[in-house]
Amino acid sequence: MDQDLLAALDIGGTKIAGALVDDDGGLLVSTRRPTPARESGDDVMRAVTEVLDELRASDQWPRVAAVGIGSAGPVDGRRGTVSPVNIPGWRDHPLVDGVRATVGNMPVSLVGDGVAITAAEHWQGAARGRDNALCMVVSTGVGGGLVLDGRLHTGPTGNAGHIGHISVDLDGAPCPCGARGCVEGLASGPNIARRALEDGWRPGPDGDTSARAVAAAARAGDPVAAASFERAARALAAGIAATATLVEIEIAVIGGGVAQAGEVLFGPLRRTLAEYATLSFVRDLEVVPAGTGTDAGLVGAAAACREALGRPV
Amino acid sequence: MDQDLLAALDIGGTKIAGALVDDDGGLLVSTRRPTPARESGDDVMRAVTEVLDELRASDQWPRVAAVGIGSAGPVDGRRGTVSPVNIPGWRDHPLVDGVRATVGNMPVSLVGDGVAITAAEHWQGAARGRDNALCMVVSTGVGGGLVLDGRLHTGPTGNAGHIGHISVDLDGAPCPCGARGCVEGLASGPNIARRALEDGWRPGPDGDTSARAVAAAARAGDPVAAASFERAARALAAGIAATATLVEIEIAVIGGGVAQAGEVLFGPLRRTLAEYATLSFVRDLEVVPAGTGTDAGLVGAAAACREALGRPV
Repeated sequence: MDQDLLAALDIGGTKIAGALVDDDGGLLVSTRRPTPARESGDDVMRAVTEVLDELRASDQWPRVAAVGIGSAGPVDGRRGTVSPVNIPGWRDHPLVDGVRATVGNMPVSLVGDGVAITAAEHWQGAARGRDNALCMVVSTGVGGGLVLDGRLHTGPTGNAGHIGHISVDLDGAPCPCGARGCVEGLASGPNIARRALEDGWRPGPDGDTSARAVAAAARAGDPVAAASFERAARALAAGIAATATLVEIEIAVIGGGVAQAGEVLFGPLRRTLAEYATLSFVRDLEVVPAGTGTDAGLVGAAAACREALGRPV
Repeated sequence: MDQDLLAALDIGGTKIAGALVDDDGGLLVSTRRPTPARESGDDVMRAVTEVLDELRASDQWPRVAAVGIGSAGPVDGRRGTVSPVNIPGWRDHPLVDGVRATVGNMPVSLVGDGVAITAAEHWQGAARGRDNALCMVVSTGVGGGLVLDGRLHTGPTGNAGHIGHISVDLDGAPCPCGARGCVEGLASGPNIARRALEDGWRPGPDGDTSARAVAAAARAGDPVAAASFERAARALAAGIAATATLVEIEIAVIGGGVAQAGEVLFGPLRRTLAEYATLSFVRDLEVVPAGTGTDAGLVGAAAACREALGRPV
């Protein structure tokens, strides 16, 4: 039997998902469970093992050549450890060893979730066929990854592309990461909603104060709601322009819940990007919505593993 | 006769230099002349041709395998053209074709001057043996280049590493590039001097208002002079941390006139870097002075050409 499948794990603060992924990025078997993020590290690892056991119970398991993991970061792909900010029980947790203990002797690759999403977009989504791209998720947090010279740029530890924690406002507000004026502090969903509320926006009768509600208000003409999205767009524009100016990218792909706001975000983003991406070699930079869906984390974990194994993506 | 030499050209707003460079980065023959930057584009090209003619007159010329060019940017390495900000007569100037017209049928490579300096530091200087590095020149302007995964990262057009024009202050002062709050606008030599003067620093009896004079005053205890260097250091720290967070680098190398200020710059730079480089995978980032000297532009043009030809550096 051909070893033509990869097992993929997508590990985040709210869910742990697993799947068997074929050569076309199709999901043959998939499963998920909530992350017991407030429990001990052993409990979290037990949930990972349960997901793997479900995959191993499939009659397709013998076709699996390797395991690809995308995890909330920071990760350390060299040492096979993870320290996800939102899983306090895991600090320098030896995730790769833990997975090997279950699956036995096969290659296991580990990258950050932003890198995984980027691998998915490059394989199947809006960055397909592009040799130099930034792919981002703008949601509860802001993450990303890079394709450079046609290849996924993981960095030595699998964390490259952390655009949410570059400072675009060196005297700005303190960020939980310890720095100031980070893109995430200006552009994440919760920060868009917080700023709108602080500036006087009031939710409707349903009391929904999410970024989605702010987007709906902006679309209906509320200037305070629109201004909060415009500020987020400006921060994203400065960060995207910085990335393009540093490494040369031709396209920035944006997914995640905040990107669902559509033109409320993309309109001011394209406008402000022209203010920051001024040098000749970055002026034609495109910004587009993501092309992959909710399985992007799993597809991307498999895609990153394919690159690590040297299979063409 | 072995074709073991490269001809190198280093083209800037003040001088055009040329040399024959051996496999060890040694300069066998070298020449230079002032850039007629205020004359016509044809006059500038004539100066380049004169430099090449001097090199071709050497009895070593038959050993030359290729020509490597490092030029003030922006450049377009794909099309072989340059549009240096400080050489107004050259806009989309076909420099590579012009050089080929003189040297005949041999490979000609073209990169930006920041990329060239980086190639020199990676080959001979402080980034030697490092697989992931940012190399910078902080002088009249602020430029740079990247080594990623052990290789010079030129970007598709040869402009990657333009750290001087990333915004670290999205609401900051307008930059001549069209953006706001660029690293160069806060950290270049002329801007360090301007800020010190605006804040009340006064030059000594010699009337020297250069960044070097501000550095001397800071070293002698002048708090306004020191504060101007600290502000520059903070901007550099934010830019370097952003770069490390985006692509993962282990070392930042800083050369150029402003780096000559020594601890007046490097002290606050290391201190503020710790404030912005906070994530686990960037926390150990080193910052060191450049290791190459005044010939770095020529050595680097040759080094970048070696990489383009596939010779190990």
